Amino acid sequence: MEGPLLTDLYQFSMLDAYWAQDMTETAVFEFFVRRLPARRGFLMAAGLEQVIDYLETLCFGAEEIGQLRRCGRFGDDFLDRLAAFRFTGDVDALPEGTIFFADEPAIRVTAPLPQAQLVESRLVNLLHFQTLVASKAARMVLAAPGKQLVDFGMRRAHGAEAALLAARACYLAGFDGTATLAAGIRFDIPVFGTMAHSFIQAHDSEAEAFEHFARARPQGVTLLIDTYDTERAAELVTRVAPRLKADGIAIQAVRLDSGDLGGHARKVRAILDAAGLHEISIFASGGLDEDQLAAFTRDQVPIDGYGIGTCLTTSYDAPALDCAYKLQEYGGVPRRKQSEGKATWPGRKQVWRRLRDGRMAGDLLAQHGAPHRGYPLLRPVMRDGRRIGGAPSLDTAREHASAELGILPVSLKALLPTSYPVEVDMSLKLLAAECDQRIAERNCTL
Amino acid sequence: MEGPLLTDLYQFSMLDAYWAQDMTETAVFEFFVRRLPARRGFLMAAGLEQVIDYLETLCFGAEEIGQLRRCGRFGDDFLDRLAAFRFTGDVDALPEGTIFFADEPAIRVTAPLPQAQLVESRLVNLLHFQTLVASKAARMVLAAPGKQLVDFGMRRAHGAEAALLAARACYLAGFDGTATLAAGIRFDIPVFGTMAHSFIQAHDSEAEAFEHFARARPQGVTLLIDTYDTERAAELVTRVAPRLKADGIAIQAVRLDSGDLGGHARKVRAILDAAGLHEISIFASGGLDEDQLAAFTRDQVPIDGYGIGTCLTTSYDAPALDCAYKLQEYGGVPRRKQSEGKATWPGRKQVWRRLRDGRMAGDLLAQHGAPHRGYPLLRPVMRDGRRIGGAPSLDTAREHASAELGILPVSLKALLPTSYPVEVDMSLKLLAAECDQRIAERNCTL
Repeated sequence: MEGPLLTDLYQFSMLDAYWAQDMTETAVFEFFVRRLPARRGFLMAAGLEQVIDYLETLCFGAEEIGQLRRCGRFGDDFLDRLAAFRFTGDVDALPEGTIFFADEPAIRVTAPLPQAQLVESRLVNLLHFQTLVASKAARMVLAAPGKQLVDFGMRRAHGAEAALLAARACYLAGFDGTATLAAGIRFDIPVFGTMAHSFIQAHDSEAEAFEHFARARPQGVTLLIDTYDTERAAELVTRVAPRLKADGIAIQAVRLDSGDLGGHARKVRAILDAAGLHEISIFASGGLDEDQLAAFTRDQVPIDGYGIGTCLTTSYDAPALDCAYKLQEYGGVPRRKQSEGKATWPGRKQVWRRLRDGRMAGDLLAQHGAPHRGYPLLRPVMRDGRRIGGAPSLDTAREHASAELGILPVSLKALLPTSYPVEVDMSLKLLAAECDQRIAERNCTL
Repeated sequence: MEGPLLTDLYQFSMLDAYWAQDMTETAVFEFFVRRLPARRGFLMAAGLEQVIDYLETLCFGAEEIGQLRRCGRFGDDFLDRLAAFRFTGDVDALPEGTIFFADEPAIRVTAPLPQAQLVESRLVNLLHFQTLVASKAARMVLAAPGKQLVDFGMRRAHGAEAALLAARACYLAGFDGTATLAAGIRFDIPVFGTMAHSFIQAHDSEAEAFEHFARARPQGVTLLIDTYDTERAAELVTRVAPRLKADGIAIQAVRLDSGDLGGHARKVRAILDAAGLHEISIFASGGLDEDQLAAFTRDQVPIDGYGIGTCLTTSYDAPALDCAYKLQEYGGVPRRKQSEGKATWPGRKQVWRRLRDGRMAGDLLAQHGAPHRGYPLLRPVMRDGRRIGGAPSLDTAREHASAELGILPVSLKALLPTSYPVEVDMSLKLLAAECDQRIAERNCTL
């Protein structure tokens, strides 16, 4: 499923052509986002760890070579060479959790052309999705300060890997955990769970369902109270709670999942408080997005935590980023694509960020090499096909993400953000002009 | 990655509680979509094969039991029982490719309660995504009759499985193939490929790149012509083509990927035709959706095929369906959820479809059992945990999908469709009222 054949056919066609022509000089590719989706003021880099794992382990075993042979598109020489393929290049990248903007490279791959080309499809697939989800999750984290946020999105995530990587990406961005058990185990993320409506429905009465559940699973009991009538179920909780408490079982929370969540939360809070059950918290779910979280925060709705599903794991309002992985240099010569609306800045680049009063004040996109004001964002991650140092833990990346959200300009923390200044250094503009001239000369002389 | 722990934690909590209370009578769950997304007139069922595979093979091996033991949430009795878990139930479902509408069950699972409950998360995850993509792809198939349609969406699909299953779902709905090699191999789908802009950029001139590519990969040559200047590159093709032809190499197509695709296509067609190269077809890609396809069809733009990426594999305008998998019966008693805006029709259901003049004229949602006018849509697929008969081939499902699109009412073929009549049988309404009364009685007597 995640094997090395998970790529576009054209990567192999190009590889074949490059090898046939011995075009194996050093190429530089950069991954960047052309423009931010509507309502996104910033992006949060995520997915680098999976990319590095992919690059370190990429090879074609006997099974894959056999499959390629059987499909009849490739010759023996090509397949022999493919069997010996390894990624031996360098990677520089934004650490996971770093805030970035349009046109800023999030990763730079420097490798022999066939290698740097072949890895495109999966590299984009991995970086795009986690960056998409982390960027969406960060908006939710900003919209609900101090609230518990849990990923509930596995069922409507786009397949198995999306469910797992969305859980990772939102935890990185500041979520507290996930309901997806496999993601919890794989990435060591806290796992949360409540109960489904079917559990209530399968019992003859709601009270019976509550008691049975609490006695069977007495740790961290969360009762779902909207199956029939939310307020009536909250009253029921006040009657069940003392019986359970007598047996040493505490109800930790109730969950609302439908209707006017804010209105129900206030009524339920009042019912619980009137019974002295201040310690039972209120958890809400059901089609939530960052706008609703922000409204609840503004209105001081008494909800203590949120389970967020579809809007998070599909990045519902913007389910894709306009991203690209483009050749910027080959054989020491900067390269540029001139396609309408998709022209690129040529050459190896670095992003320099300036702070003012502890907050981000502006970025400069410049040619790699000469230093500029501020600090550089792209860091060395891989050299000669090997990771530099150990893999940072997910919690380390999560702390970095939190620090990044902490230095965001106030205007970018809003859900309808203003734009952030990213300047393009004059040297890059001159380089682009040089590229244009060279392309014009070369292509007029046929 | 696709292991049995890919589920929500609460499934295990409920399983534990059900086993503790010996609640193992027969449960009936149905998967349905509550309402169609804006601009969708119908849905196309897809993903059933992956669901059946999942149900047939679901078990917890020593590795998974060990992981669950280490996470400390479950007792030995539960884990021993889980180690013996198998799905032994029945499944009735819409064949893949069937058109369906809101509230109509696409799959019905009848099994002991713990089994029918446990499979919820992954079943929804599998059915939701392929149905989402097949439904989107069907709109594209309708919008571009007679054109070649190829899935180009791997890189921005949400992870590995999304890329693979999107390729499958769109082929089922009528696409001609995919660029994703692994999907082609896994599902025996035709694979298509061209070249990337980087291939052009890496060469000193576009003409050189074209010739090198065609000579290295002489079968089905498609040249990408928008890297610098589309029309100039088309002129170039007219000069390269005769040289290649002299060596027995035919250029099959040129690809446009940016700018005003319709305008460029007309100019490029004229350039190619003027050179007598009528046999070179024009293939277009770059952010295409069904609206653009429909506009090109209406305007008779000379494009012969389309590569469609992000809009297809993410179902960009509606990246999720409001779907649910709900308990409809337990222990012989119909069950109903009454939550605001999410109430369900109780009991086992069947959908009866009427045709008029060879086209769909209306559906009836009725209690399972008694026959009604028309023909029933849900068919037996699995009994006692085993598939009935062999798995239908993907091509068989694709033929069924094509036949289904053929009997769509004309009004549903439009991209802004009208609604389709789905009636709810009186017996179901009476059953719902009975459920409501029973729930009220049971829950007032605490």
